[in-house]
Amino acid sequence: MAVITAGARPFSASTHQARLRHAAAQAVARGLDALLITPSPDYLYLLGYSAPALERLTCLLIPAHGTPSLVLPNLERPLPASELGALADHLEFLIWGETDDPFRLVKAALGDARRVGVQDQMWARFVLRLAAILDPVELVEAGPAISALRRVKEPVEVERLRAAAAAADRAMAAITAERLSGRTEAEVSARISELLREAGHQTADFAIVGSGANSASPHHSPGERVIGVGDAVVLDIGGTRDGYASDTTRTAFVGEPPPEFREMYAVLQGAQNAAVAAVAPGIAAREVDRAAREVIEAAGYGEFFIHRTGHGIGLEVHEEPYIVASNAEHLEVGNAFSVEPGIYLPGRWGARIEDIVVCGEAGPDRLNLSSTDLFLVD
Amino acid sequence: MAVITAGARPFSASTHQARLRHAAAQAVARGLDALLITPSPDYLYLLGYSAPALERLTCLLIPAHGTPSLVLPNLERPLPASELGALADHLEFLIWGETDDPFRLVKAALGDARRVGVQDQMWARFVLRLAAILDPVELVEAGPAISALRRVKEPVEVERLRAAAAAADRAMAAITAERLSGRTEAEVSARISELLREAGHQTADFAIVGSGANSASPHHSPGERVIGVGDAVVLDIGGTRDGYASDTTRTAFVGEPPPEFREMYAVLQGAQNAAVAAVAPGIAAREVDRAAREVIEAAGYGEFFIHRTGHGIGLEVHEEPYIVASNAEHLEVGNAFSVEPGIYLPGRWGARIEDIVVCGEAGPDRLNLSSTDLFLVD
Repeated sequence: MAVITAGARPFSASTHQARLRHAAAQAVARGLDALLITPSPDYLYLLGYSAPALERLTCLLIPAHGTPSLVLPNLERPLPASELGALADHLEFLIWGETDDPFRLVKAALGDARRVGVQDQMWARFVLRLAAILDPVELVEAGPAISALRRVKEPVEVERLRAAAAAADRAMAAITAERLSGRTEAEVSARISELLREAGHQTADFAIVGSGANSASPHHSPGERVIGVGDAVVLDIGGTRDGYASDTTRTAFVGEPPPEFREMYAVLQGAQNAAVAAVAPGIAAREVDRAAREVIEAAGYGEFFIHRTGHGIGLEVHEEPYIVASNAEHLEVGNAFSVEPGIYLPGRWGARIEDIVVCGEAGPDRLNLSSTDLFLVD
Repeated sequence: MAVITAGARPFSASTHQARLRHAAAQAVARGLDALLITPSPDYLYLLGYSAPALERLTCLLIPAHGTPSLVLPNLERPLPASELGALADHLEFLIWGETDDPFRLVKAALGDARRVGVQDQMWARFVLRLAAILDPVELVEAGPAISALRRVKEPVEVERLRAAAAAADRAMAAITAERLSGRTEAEVSARISELLREAGHQTADFAIVGSGANSASPHHSPGERVIGVGDAVVLDIGGTRDGYASDTTRTAFVGEPPPEFREMYAVLQGAQNAAVAAVAPGIAAREVDRAAREVIEAAGYGEFFIHRTGHGIGLEVHEEPYIVASNAEHLEVGNAFSVEPGIYLPGRWGARIEDIVVCGEAGPDRLNLSSTDLFLVD
């Protein structure tokens, strides 16, 4: 079972070695004796290859001090040679057979560890079995340690995000140049999947099409509703290119928008611009959320902006840092995230504008370059 | 962010209501006060719609007694109406806003529960946060309770598996009718992905192509090796159709196979037939493994059959029951699983034959109907 993982090309072995060293340093800084990383975006980030999350335990063990090891089922043994390249020389391999207990291998490798971080998305079945066999070792979230690395994008990562964003912009330009009326949301969504691939994504991961009253449901699941004149249409699309995610939203209107919609949209556009403009190193993430929210509240739409302003993006479409009122963390150079306020009038219509922004030395670096104006479509 | 989940059509609301009731009964039988089911194949099985596993807590809470509830982020609130249909009337909704703590909602809903099952693939971050806030509630694996339902396929599920298997058979027939020599493994793998979709899969999930010495690596990742005359080629392919998985393996040989390969292949084919023939209600899963292994061992290839004989299949490509030497569980009518022995001579060549089989009243019901003979290709 080799999962089809298009385009998750590794960086150089020295890049991945450095990431492993930095992860160990994070463990030390957080009082952790080791990190256990099962297949996940963290695993891909650290090792440069993606293994499927399956029932057989595969686990990267990063001790605070010493050589990392890779716990692998026997039948996966041939993989690292081809997938890891030169990185394989810097890892120990702990191989288990079909009737062995891999958790005993982990226990032995952990030695006298007392406090161990487990990867954020590790399966509960593994967490509970590890907790039982490792007792009284304390298991804690490894998330903050790995996120401290992943949230600061290296320049090569920013360039991959920029290429993914450009591909999403091309797909958005293409779909908004087509006639939307007379087609179902589901048809338009399927068409966007094609356009995402044609524009250079290896995977098309989502294509929200919310029309008419459905545009007021932020995560609407595109269905059989036929788009018609007088509909607002929220288009929220994304995929991955070379392993990195895109995510952009634009709002279209079929025919001539009523003044009331135009007025609401102008407020939203002002809010999105204000939030992007607030991005700078040292600014708290919640200040970016507040910048958008203040504009929307001042115009009387506060109760209709029902979600956070944004989320980090990278190997995952949602990752840290989150741009939410409860997040007091300060932005750093290299943080990449969405800025996507929305206004949703239940039963009536909604609109959202979403761009990916990188926090640069001098302020915001917008990765999506298409106009944020309302698209007028047929 | 609506994940593109092609083809996971729900069954009727009454089917899903029955599944929820049976899950509660399983909880009672296992001394659990409740089950917590985050988005996963279990969630899809129970509710009939697929939600993405993301950082915002979405969780189905099934109490041993009483009405199940669905913990949802506020911005997902509009979804259940459209996705759940009539089932929504049989659930309570617990909605949380962007700055609320959803774990407190879960705690309140659990009341005085003492022992709670958590979905097998629930993210570690959720498990650890639940463990902290629910302390001293004991968290255990919900897997066995849900698997007790999912491992026994309903007739409608068997028919979906049969349709998926037929689609995989068509893709296999198509690829083995093409010239393989002169193409890279990666090219053939990409072509198989196309063929899986053309044959009726909504998703193409894997396409292992292991040629020459790579055929001896069971989970080989298709690469730049050019297939040539004298190569064995293991083709292990699958996807999903209407939400259910296919998974079949055939071995091809480019040109005239040497007698030694033919002899080894005949042993493998005999082993696969013996294992399929061993399938019957009441037989231990490990007896099916043993049936294959005995044939291979008797011919002197025992050490080269380095994996279990099979895995259950359904909404997931790997699920219970596992056909492995350590599994003493008895097969039941409605179990669906792969039977896939392989023989792998390192550095030289390998072969595997894989069919999906359902345990019927009267014995094995093979879902893959293509010949298991070695495919001779150009």
